Amino acid sequence: MSDMDIYGESLEAHSRAKGKLTVDSKIPVEDMHDLAVVYTPGVAEPCRKIHENPDDVYTYTTKGNMVAVVTDGSAVLGLGDIGPAAGLPVMEGKAVLFKRFAGVDAFPICVGSKEVDVVVETTAMIASGFGGINLEDISAPRCFEIERKLKERLDIPVFHDDQHGTAVIVLAGLINALKIVGKSIEDVKIVMNGAGAAGIAICKLLQSVGAGNVVLCDRAGAIYRGREANMNWIKEEMAQETNRDNESGELGDVIKGADVFLGLSGPGLFTSQMVAEMAKDAIIFAMANPTPEIYPSEALEAGAAVVATGRSDFPNQINNCLGFPGIFRGALDVRARDIDESMKLAAAYALAGLVSDSELSPQHIIPEALDKRVVPAVAQAVAEAARKSGLARV
Amino acid sequence: MSDMDIYGESLEAHSRAKGKLTVDSKIPVEDMHDLAVVYTPGVAEPCRKIHENPDDVYTYTTKGNMVAVVTDGSAVLGLGDIGPAAGLPVMEGKAVLFKRFAGVDAFPICVGSKEVDVVVETTAMIASGFGGINLEDISAPRCFEIERKLKERLDIPVFHDDQHGTAVIVLAGLINALKIVGKSIEDVKIVMNGAGAAGIAICKLLQSVGAGNVVLCDRAGAIYRGREANMNWIKEEMAQETNRDNESGELGDVIKGADVFLGLSGPGLFTSQMVAEMAKDAIIFAMANPTPEIYPSEALEAGAAVVATGRSDFPNQINNCLGFPGIFRGALDVRARDIDESMKLAAAYALAGLVSDSELSPQHIIPEALDKRVVPAVAQAVAEAARKSGLARV
Repeated sequence: MSDMDIYGESLEAHSRAKGKLTVDSKIPVEDMHDLAVVYTPGVAEPCRKIHENPDDVYTYTTKGNMVAVVTDGSAVLGLGDIGPAAGLPVMEGKAVLFKRFAGVDAFPICVGSKEVDVVVETTAMIASGFGGINLEDISAPRCFEIERKLKERLDIPVFHDDQHGTAVIVLAGLINALKIVGKSIEDVKIVMNGAGAAGIAICKLLQSVGAGNVVLCDRAGAIYRGREANMNWIKEEMAQETNRDNESGELGDVIKGADVFLGLSGPGLFTSQMVAEMAKDAIIFAMANPTPEIYPSEALEAGAAVVATGRSDFPNQINNCLGFPGIFRGALDVRARDIDESMKLAAAYALAGLVSDSELSPQHIIPEALDKRVVPAVAQAVAEAARKSGLARV
Repeated sequence: MSDMDIYGESLEAHSRAKGKLTVDSKIPVEDMHDLAVVYTPGVAEPCRKIHENPDDVYTYTTKGNMVAVVTDGSAVLGLGDIGPAAGLPVMEGKAVLFKRFAGVDAFPICVGSKEVDVVVETTAMIASGFGGINLEDISAPRCFEIERKLKERLDIPVFHDDQHGTAVIVLAGLINALKIVGKSIEDVKIVMNGAGAAGIAICKLLQSVGAGNVVLCDRAGAIYRGREANMNWIKEEMAQETNRDNESGELGDVIKGADVFLGLSGPGLFTSQMVAEMAKDAIIFAMANPTPEIYPSEALEAGAAVVATGRSDFPNQINNCLGFPGIFRGALDVRARDIDESMKLAAAYALAGLVSDSELSPQHIIPEALDKRVVPAVAQAVAEAARKSGLARV
């Protein structure tokens, strides 16, 4: 099916249903008696209980299973800054995925300002009704500041999926890809193209498990200490923390001899020539959507050992549905106060571990999106990690 | 069933279901193809359409049928200022009623501040995802300011149900009660006890249809021009606009000779003695919940002609479910920019009109809460009024 067909079908489905979400009652309401139970006078009693003991909000309301999908519409899919209302179909879609994959109730919150402090303040002000906050499609570097401020302020998980969800799945795939080629993460040279939300988060997560030589590139080439063009505060920070040998130059320069390429950029930005100049048994994650930086057939012909993309019609799909549903399921199950590094790492290792040694192959480094084992395995690992971190309330 | 029983049953139902709301997908999601329709890549197309034409948000998202139930938890039921989290069970309950009565999707938004401008700013910032705002359980006089500021700022209906929903139903009941006793609203003396959100709104709505002599009382007695004790800006305003003869004194003083008593206060604040001192064929709406200002049997024995309460176990229940579901249904159906006075009046007359002349009796001045004719009749009247006012978008 072509993209044109799927666009037409999506438009038709959205207009027929008038959007995707419906809010319903879990308690049946048929007669006056039922009304008295769910509303006045009966409802006064759960209110009183929560007023006496704030933790009871998890017992008597939907909070413990409810996630806010918060955006300002500043970086929606590949469409860019289209604003909160135009981003709503994506947020509704995310809520659908939360329910479909993990039984999590989720609701879109589209904030009508791109001021960092307004997004933070608005989200913080409505947080009491939610068990977690999923930040979505917020542009970098604003997303880092928004997330940091909200994490400091709130006692529920705040998780920017475009960053950490993607990072968890990339790490899981990379763990398995490195097994196939017999290299260790400490030794490999990893070149990344794309220094947005996902790129930065992946970089940080890989370094937290020991990656010793990550070179981050953007449109202006490698990010290095001393670069002046096209910088911002987070790139300055990354220049200090990455690029061991302080390499400068374009992607085509720094890719030479690299073991791993991670693409979070756009179509046509990575070539067969570059693959050929990488080290033996190169690993390529070409994750631009819908058109990858390089097609798998081309990369394999040029000598790559393992190729992953963001697409379901090729092997090894790096699909966010492998991450956020189980991560939030696990965090909500233990009423976690936050999602920390250890919980993300636990998710990545659980995901990687679902591919057994006998299944592991260049065409199968990561479970498929609809694999029913994924959410329970990730959720359990995340919940256990939260308990160990002391972030679990139950 | 006693209140104790209903409280226990409510607590049990709330904890068994872990709250009342569930968010689901209206579009089935079974396989990778469905995922591509509701999420990437398909979802990009409705986003693009909305970005090109902002009105398309009503076609491709849930906005047009989604109401935010917004509170700051400052005046929850009769419990008072218990805060946003403890108010959540009521807001979830309201969302359940929206769906049950009118097929409207509604979602609770509990704001973590009691600053008027923070409540306004937070609500305005998240409004783009909603087709209407139902303000709920916000204390007076703050509620008046919050509503006014939001109405000025937003292009969707903002409706404080505790005020206007109640006012619409009281007016409907009063129209029919006056028919029974053969008096006209212009001529009667109406005494109200309770100058909170509902009291003020009822007073204004009654005067907008010609009520010529309304005396508003609070704990300090009649509100009159020149009173100094226990005043605030809205009471000052009401002192100017009500109380034709500028009567002072306690409720027991000003009730003498009155034709109508409207109680929005508390149990035991209205006595047989007061009923006896009212004009012939007195109309009593004793709406304090769960214990009315005076019980119907007592009021009737003392000479009242018509008695209504807030309870379902007596005749003539003034139940908010008769109002807000149909009012929002009608407003959403025509994508109204606001809910104005004409739409509220249309709702009141539609509601009153559902009791035919042959049905009309002292025990039947208003339809029952579960009467299936109510929502369609109210919605149609509200939609028509919106068109006449030029507030309808379609």
